[in-house]
Amino acid sequence: MGHFLDSFFYPKSVAVVGATNNSRTISYNLLGNLVRLKFDGKMYPVNPNAAEVMGIKAYPSVTSIEETPEMVVIAIPAARTIQVVRECIARKVKAIVLVSGGFSETGKSGKKMQDEILGMLRESGTRAIGPNVLGPINTANNLSISFHPLNTLPRGKVSFIFQSGLYEPRLNWLQSEFGLHLNKVIDLGNKMDVSEVDALEYLSGDPGSEVIAIHMESITGNAREFMRLLKETAKRKPVVVLKSGRTAEGATAASSHTGAIMKSTDAVFDAVLKQCGAIRAQSLDDFFDWAKIFEYYGHLGLKGNRIALASGSGGEGVITTDCAQFNGLTLARVSSKTYEKLRPVFPGWDIEANPFDIGVAFQFHGTIEAYGTYFNAMAEDENVDCLATQVTRHAATEGRFVEIAYEVLRKGKPLVFWTATPSGFDGIASQLQARGIPVYPTSERAVKALAALGGWGATPPAAHSSGLP
Amino acid sequence: MGHFLDSFFYPKSVAVVGATNNSRTISYNLLGNLVRLKFDGKMYPVNPNAAEVMGIKAYPSVTSIEETPEMVVIAIPAARTIQVVRECIARKVKAIVLVSGGFSETGKSGKKMQDEILGMLRESGTRAIGPNVLGPINTANNLSISFHPLNTLPRGKVSFIFQSGLYEPRLNWLQSEFGLHLNKVIDLGNKMDVSEVDALEYLSGDPGSEVIAIHMESITGNAREFMRLLKETAKRKPVVVLKSGRTAEGATAASSHTGAIMKSTDAVFDAVLKQCGAIRAQSLDDFFDWAKIFEYYGHLGLKGNRIALASGSGGEGVITTDCAQFNGLTLARVSSKTYEKLRPVFPGWDIEANPFDIGVAFQFHGTIEAYGTYFNAMAEDENVDCLATQVTRHAATEGRFVEIAYEVLRKGKPLVFWTATPSGFDGIASQLQARGIPVYPTSERAVKALAALGGWGATPPAAHSSGLP
Repeated sequence: MGHFLDSFFYPKSVAVVGATNNSRTISYNLLGNLVRLKFDGKMYPVNPNAAEVMGIKAYPSVTSIEETPEMVVIAIPAARTIQVVRECIARKVKAIVLVSGGFSETGKSGKKMQDEILGMLRESGTRAIGPNVLGPINTANNLSISFHPLNTLPRGKVSFIFQSGLYEPRLNWLQSEFGLHLNKVIDLGNKMDVSEVDALEYLSGDPGSEVIAIHMESITGNAREFMRLLKETAKRKPVVVLKSGRTAEGATAASSHTGAIMKSTDAVFDAVLKQCGAIRAQSLDDFFDWAKIFEYYGHLGLKGNRIALASGSGGEGVITTDCAQFNGLTLARVSSKTYEKLRPVFPGWDIEANPFDIGVAFQFHGTIEAYGTYFNAMAEDENVDCLATQVTRHAATEGRFVEIAYEVLRKGKPLVFWTATPSGFDGIASQLQARGIPVYPTSERAVKALAALGGWGATPPAAHSSGLP
Repeated sequence: MGHFLDSFFYPKSVAVVGATNNSRTISYNLLGNLVRLKFDGKMYPVNPNAAEVMGIKAYPSVTSIEETPEMVVIAIPAARTIQVVRECIARKVKAIVLVSGGFSETGKSGKKMQDEILGMLRESGTRAIGPNVLGPINTANNLSISFHPLNTLPRGKVSFIFQSGLYEPRLNWLQSEFGLHLNKVIDLGNKMDVSEVDALEYLSGDPGSEVIAIHMESITGNAREFMRLLKETAKRKPVVVLKSGRTAEGATAASSHTGAIMKSTDAVFDAVLKQCGAIRAQSLDDFFDWAKIFEYYGHLGLKGNRIALASGSGGEGVITTDCAQFNGLTLARVSSKTYEKLRPVFPGWDIEANPFDIGVAFQFHGTIEAYGTYFNAMAEDENVDCLATQVTRHAATEGRFVEIAYEVLRKGKPLVFWTATPSGFDGIASQLQARGIPVYPTSERAVKALAALGGWGATPPAAHSSGLP
């Protein structure tokens, strides 16, 4: 028998209550994305004032649909939501997505409405996510419940659990320039019924979700069970956690927007995450950056903390070296053989092999010759566990650059790039990422991501003891 | 009498030794930028193999130029540089830019060549920056010595001192999307002759340089004099310092690429910077982010550490609240009057005013109505010292948004925005920045920049004691 969340990720049919032809309303894309991205299932717009929405026959109510939709998305004001939930339960709908806010996060009367809905659900076989949520998203069947118009839904390995819609405005960017490839996304909002425990349980057992990333403000479900699951899951797949509401003011803010109450201090939570083997992200950038490094290189892991750095200027190499050390990595001491291999792309004098000032090499040698010689030498050096390299303007103009970089991966070593500017992502970065090599907008983020990769799984004690997260 | 660096920033004429018509070489843009950006002075290409470069009459040597050029840029291999320097001294050239590497950073023989050049300079009135440098840049006269093709050189308030060319690939981006407006840039490289003391002395007394940002790996000049200057300068203008080579490995890397030797530990340097009133950036992002906040708001300063936050989702508000607290800011407790002013753009229930979930407001109210009401209330609340607000997709489509935001500035309160994605910079961000309101790519960077602003000048003790940097 499957998990009840199957009905949320693989519904055979989806009804959208509040579907509309008015592209100026926020609800327009709830059905719009399903239509545009060709959701692999039946769609039932529910709108008493329309005969059809986006060319699909509309129904005045859930009750009036011929078959029972497996999932119903309810996006109408809170006060009118209760009646629709009642209809859903009567129709034995399996899955409800409660999009609207206006429930427990609003105070007593909202909490009362939410409790009333929960009471009805408890007496039925119907389950609900929310209220105050978007999602789910599943790239396997193009299920995509979102306010934002989505351009594309490429299938990947990372699944997310969110407690709020903060991912929404980032979805297109995450999947394009940033190069993250999603498997599933579930947003939990007020967590009235479905909690982080259910979501983690599902994704833990889901073969498509090879990496799990969890944004949370509170534990609403059984904390012990959550810890047990987290620990068990982290043995098999990387789990990155962004826990916010860490400061006193942050916790108050968290409580007021979802109605949840913090049960533990941040220090306790931190200790629990470490004990469970989860990786704690300290910022939103970390969260996405680290989900990305595990998507690209979770299968490789990091065998040690010895890094090789190459930058377009000596100054950038120094900054990156500091950053590597602050994050528990150490500069690889390359073998004399490697040094000899590199010498042909030196300038007219001896320079350091690590950090390697590839900008100096460019003044005397071709781009491909310099990068190629460097990659080849480092990929074969047993003293080098991983590489972080700056993509320069020269590299971006060379078609062969991606294939040369890919040779490092073929030798089994994680290789990350950074660019000098965010707009550096447009050209060469997408080519590299299409070949499975992640690119970050700064050297600091590139290096921190590698360090995070080392913090998971089969990292040798040496790396752990030197301060990897 | 002026400062000797006047000849580097305001030369009446510039000769470029190594100027070339070959656009595939790295040296092409040295003269190319001067021509394209219309440098306000005479230009003399020096190239024995060309009659003209870019349509300008070329000379076989510095000696053969009719008048003495005030500044000579030398971009030919190290070994041939000495002879050109000799010619420059004979011609009584005032300023030399030694672009080539291959000197003290390469070991003994390079150091010997460098010492030979320095010896000649010391016996003359000629001064030199480098070797191993680019620059200078001066937006007042479109002087721009750079390997990268520059699109534009808008005039601004921030002047930079760099120790390496790491700013080079970022120049166009810094000046466009990022919205930083440069006044002057000087790169010091090996610091054979001109040191950070000279550069700081000049910029300290330069009225156009209202903000000074210094990237350094070592102190080469008189350390006591540097400290004295820094302390005296920081009383009058904000000085942001990025000191790299902080870790043992980083210091070694710094020493090998410029030949400089660290004279103090990082902790000592940190204490010195604090004592002098300079603001220490911890990363390259901080460095540019903070230079930017002082360029935009150095004249306003931050009167206290009480911040008002507004985000497109509750979850983002929580993350930003944490970040504000970690950086020494505290959430402003708004007055009851402010709360009443905000109420019309609430949803159907009471919500928090700070952090304000403007995304919820949008579900019930117009974009301009919600933002406008919010800005107006916060700008007038005496409990609010500054604002950080997320630019949402809705705002970006509203032409009036920028003017509404500008009203906050008119009330004298620093207001920063953040966007959800780097590509969010393209449209609305440039409009906001053109109006003098800075935009950052993440809430964390926006909040950290405001906190840095509070660390300078007339900040009240309350803000300082709560951990502002």
